[in-house]
Amino acid sequence: MGVSPSGSYQCITFLTDYGLEDGFVAACHGVMARLAPGVPVIDITHLVPPGDVRRGAAVLAQTVPYLPAGVHVAVVDPGVGTARRTAAIEAGDNIFVGPDNGLLSWATNAAGGVVRAHELANQDLWLRPVSRTFHGRDVFAPVAARLATGLDLAAVGPAIPPDRLVTIPEPTSRVRDGCAEGEVLSADRFGNVQLSVREAQLAELGVEFGDTLAVELARRTLTVPLRETFASVPPGELVAYVDSAGFVAVAVNSGNASQRLGLPPGARVRLARTAAAP
Amino acid sequence: MGVSPSGSYQCITFLTDYGLEDGFVAACHGVMARLAPGVPVIDITHLVPPGDVRRGAAVLAQTVPYLPAGVHVAVVDPGVGTARRTAAIEAGDNIFVGPDNGLLSWATNAAGGVVRAHELANQDLWLRPVSRTFHGRDVFAPVAARLATGLDLAAVGPAIPPDRLVTIPEPTSRVRDGCAEGEVLSADRFGNVQLSVREAQLAELGVEFGDTLAVELARRTLTVPLRETFASVPPGELVAYVDSAGFVAVAVNSGNASQRLGLPPGARVRLARTAAAP
Amino acid sequence: MGVSPSGSYQCITFLTDYGLEDGFVAACHGVMARLAPGVPVIDITHLVPPGDVRRGAAVLAQTVPYLPAGVHVAVVDPGVGTARRTAAIEAGDNIFVGPDNGLLSWATNAAGGVVRAHELANQDLWLRPVSRTFHGRDVFAPVAARLATGLDLAAVGPAIPPDRLVTIPEPTSRVRDGCAEGEVLSADRFGNVQLSVREAQLAELGVEFGDTLAVELARRTLTVPLRETFASVPPGELVAYVDSAGFVAVAVNSGNASQRLGLPPGARVRLARTAAAP
Repeated sequence: MGVSPSGSYQCITFLTDYGLEDGFVAACHGVMARLAPGVPVIDITHLVPPGDVRRGAAVLAQTVPYLPAGVHVAVVDPGVGTARRTAAIEAGDNIFVGPDNGLLSWATNAAGGVVRAHELANQDLWLRPVSRTFHGRDVFAPVAARLATGLDLAAVGPAIPPDRLVTIPEPTSRVRDGCAEGEVLSADRFGNVQLSVREAQLAELGVEFGDTLAVELARRTLTVPLRETFASVPPGELVAYVDSAGFVAVAVNSGNASQRLGLPPGARVRLARTAAAP
Repeated sequence: MGVSPSGSYQCITFLTDYGLEDGFVAACHGVMARLAPGVPVIDITHLVPPGDVRRGAAVLAQTVPYLPAGVHVAVVDPGVGTARRTAAIEAGDNIFVGPDNGLLSWATNAAGGVVRAHELANQDLWLRPVSRTFHGRDVFAPVAARLATGLDLAAVGPAIPPDRLVTIPEPTSRVRDGCAEGEVLSADRFGNVQLSVREAQLAELGVEFGDTLAVELARRTLTVPLRETFASVPPGELVAYVDSAGFVAVAVNSGNASQRLGLPPGARVRLARTAAAP
Repeated sequence: MGVSPSGSYQCITFLTDYGLEDGFVAACHGVMARLAPGVPVIDITHLVPPGDVRRGAAVLAQTVPYLPAGVHVAVVDPGVGTARRTAAIEAGDNIFVGPDNGLLSWATNAAGGVVRAHELANQDLWLRPVSRTFHGRDVFAPVAARLATGLDLAAVGPAIPPDRLVTIPEPTSRVRDGCAEGEVLSADRFGNVQLSVREAQLAELGVEFGDTLAVELARRTLTVPLRETFASVPPGELVAYVDSAGFVAVAVNSGNASQRLGLPPGARVRLARTAAAP
C-alpha cells in the first residue's frame, strides 16, 4: 500500500449527494477534523443528483486518477439505514469508503482493482448514537478519519471477498458494422454531452481528427465534425471531440449541446465516419 | 475554555448567506488566512437563503455539535451597516462571532449556553477602511482570525450581559390531547421535511417505530407510517422518521416530500398515532 | 517578490467557470495537492458563467486585494486547446496563471501592475498526456503548484513583453454635464446591482450620503436615495450605496434589485443629484 512511512494517508477526499444548502457536508468535515486533525480533505462534489449512484460512480472514477493517494469517502446511499452492506475497499494506493451499492465499483477499477475489502461492522469506530439516516456523519466519516490516521483496514469489520462486492454495469460501447455504438453518459456544466464511446473505438473505425461523423441518436442523424477542441468550429456549431476522460463527447462551441440535443443519460447513440478530412 | 495549550483554537468555521457565485466568501477566507495562517477553515454553508436569520440559526445549531471546538463565524445580517450590535460569544469550548440578531442564539444554546459575550467595538482589530455593507470581510473575519490565534475575548470590545443578547424564539412543539403539535422547520436537498416535533414527544404519545401516524397539516390529514429510514417503505411512498438532528421528519422514499406536500417553514402540523404496529 | 524565505508561496487561489456538479475542480485540487502538498488552496468561485471572461476578470480583481500573496490560478477559457496563449504573470507579490485572454488583466492591475510575464510553454511541467479541453487540470494546476513550491517564473516558458499581454477594456465611467455615466457591471446573489461609477465620481458631482439620486437607465429615470447601507431605507425600497469594492450599487432593502430592474451587464446608466439631504 502506498502509505506514508507513518502508516497514514496524506489526504481524504469526499463525494456525496448531500447538496450545499444544509450543514450535512460540514458535519462530516467536522467529524473528520476532530478525528484526523491536520489531514486535508478535498471535496470532489456534493451535487450528485440525489440518489443517483450511477452518476456518483462516474464522477468518482473519472476524478480519482488525479487525486492524491488517500482515503476516498463517497456517499450516495438511497438504502441508508436498511440492511444494505457498507465497505472499506483497498485498491491501488487508495482506500474507498462508502455503501456497497456499486458506487465505488468503477473507481476501484480505475484505481487498479480491489486488493481487499472489509465490511464496516465495528461499531466502536462509529459515532454514538448512530442516526438511521445520516451514516455519512456517523459511520463513514469517523471510519475514514481513523483509516487516514493509520487504522488497519481489517479493524473496520469482517473481510468481504472481492467478488462479492456489488458492482454496477459499466457503460457499454462497441464497434460493429462500421459504427461505434454507445450511450449518453452525462452532460457537464457547459452542456457538453459525454458518450460511452472511447477514442480507441474511433481509431478502430479509421476516424481521424478533421473527419466528419454521422451521429445517430433518437430519431435523428446529425453531421458533426470531429475536431480537437470546441473552438475549432465557429461559435454556435456542433463539434465532436475526445474529452478529458478519454470519451467522445459532443459540444456546441460557446453554447450548450445538452440543451440543444435533449439527450438524457442512457440514450443510445451510433457514430460513423461520413467524410474524409478536407 | 477548551483552548489548546497555546491559547489558540484549532479551527474556524464559517456560515453565511453570501452565495457561491461571487468572491465574497473567498475574500473572507483570504482575510482569515492572512491573519491566522495555518488555521483550517471549515465552510458550513454559504447558501442560507438571503437574509433568512432563522434558517441560518437552525443550520448552525444542528451542525455545531459535530464541529471541532473553535471560532464559529456566522453572517446572515440584513441590518449590516446600521446600529445593530455585533458580538463575540463564548459558549462551551467555542466562540461564536456574528451579528447580534439571534442568528447565534440557538447554536450557543446547543453548545452549552453563553459563558460571556463581548460587543465587537475595538476597531483596531478590523480592516481599514471598513465598508458599510461587507462586515463579514472587514469586521467578522479579522476579529475571528485574531480570536483563533489567541486574542482574549475581552479585547474585542465591552462586555454584553448574556441576558441582553438578542434571541429568536426556538421552534415550538408540545404534546396535548394525544397529539404532538409543532411546525415545519425546513426542507433539505432531498425534499425531506423536518418538523419541530422531537423523538421524545412521539414516545410521550406511546408511538413506536412500526406504528402509523396521522399527520394533520394545512387542510389535510395524511396517514404516514413511522419507520426507521426512507427505504423501509416502497419507492414513491411517504414515510415519517426521526432525522439525524433528532426531529421527526417526513420524506418520500426516492422522492421529494417537500415538493409533494408543499409545506412552507412555519406551517403548523399535528401528529397522532392511528394504528399499532402489525 | 513577496516570497517567503524559502522562495515559495504560502497559498494558491483558484477561480474557474467549471461549476460544482462535476469532478473538474477536484481534479485540479488533486493535481495541486500532489505537487504542492501542504500548500492551502482557497477557492474564489467556480460559478463564473460559462465562458464569461469579463465576469471572471471582475470577480478576480475585486477579491485579490483580500487574498494572501500567492499563486492565483484562473481559468475561464473558451479558446482552450486552440493556439491561444497562456501565461504566468508576476504582479506585486503575486503570480497569476491562466489563459492570456484578458481574464487576468484587471487583477494584475489591482495587484500593482505587471512586473514580468512568461508563456506556459515548458511541457515538462505539465501532466502527460495533455488533454485538449481541460488545461486547468493538465497545464494550469501543475504549473501553479510548481510555482507555489519555488519554481522560478522564467522556467515556465519564454518571456512575454508585458505590453503584449491581452487586456480587456475596463468598464468605463465618467463625469460629464453634472452626471456620472457608467454601466451595469453585475448583480450579486442578493440582487444588488453594481455600477461602474465610483465613489470619487459621486463626490465630484457634489453628491453626499443623504442626497437623492436620479438614476437614468434604459428608458426610465428612478429616484433613489443614496444611503450608507441597505437597511437605511424601509424594506422593499430602492437604495443606492457605495459597495464593498468602492462602486456605486443599487439595492432593494430585503429584496432583489436585479430582478426588479432587469438590468443586464453592460446596460448604460446615468446618475445625477436631485435633492439635498433633508
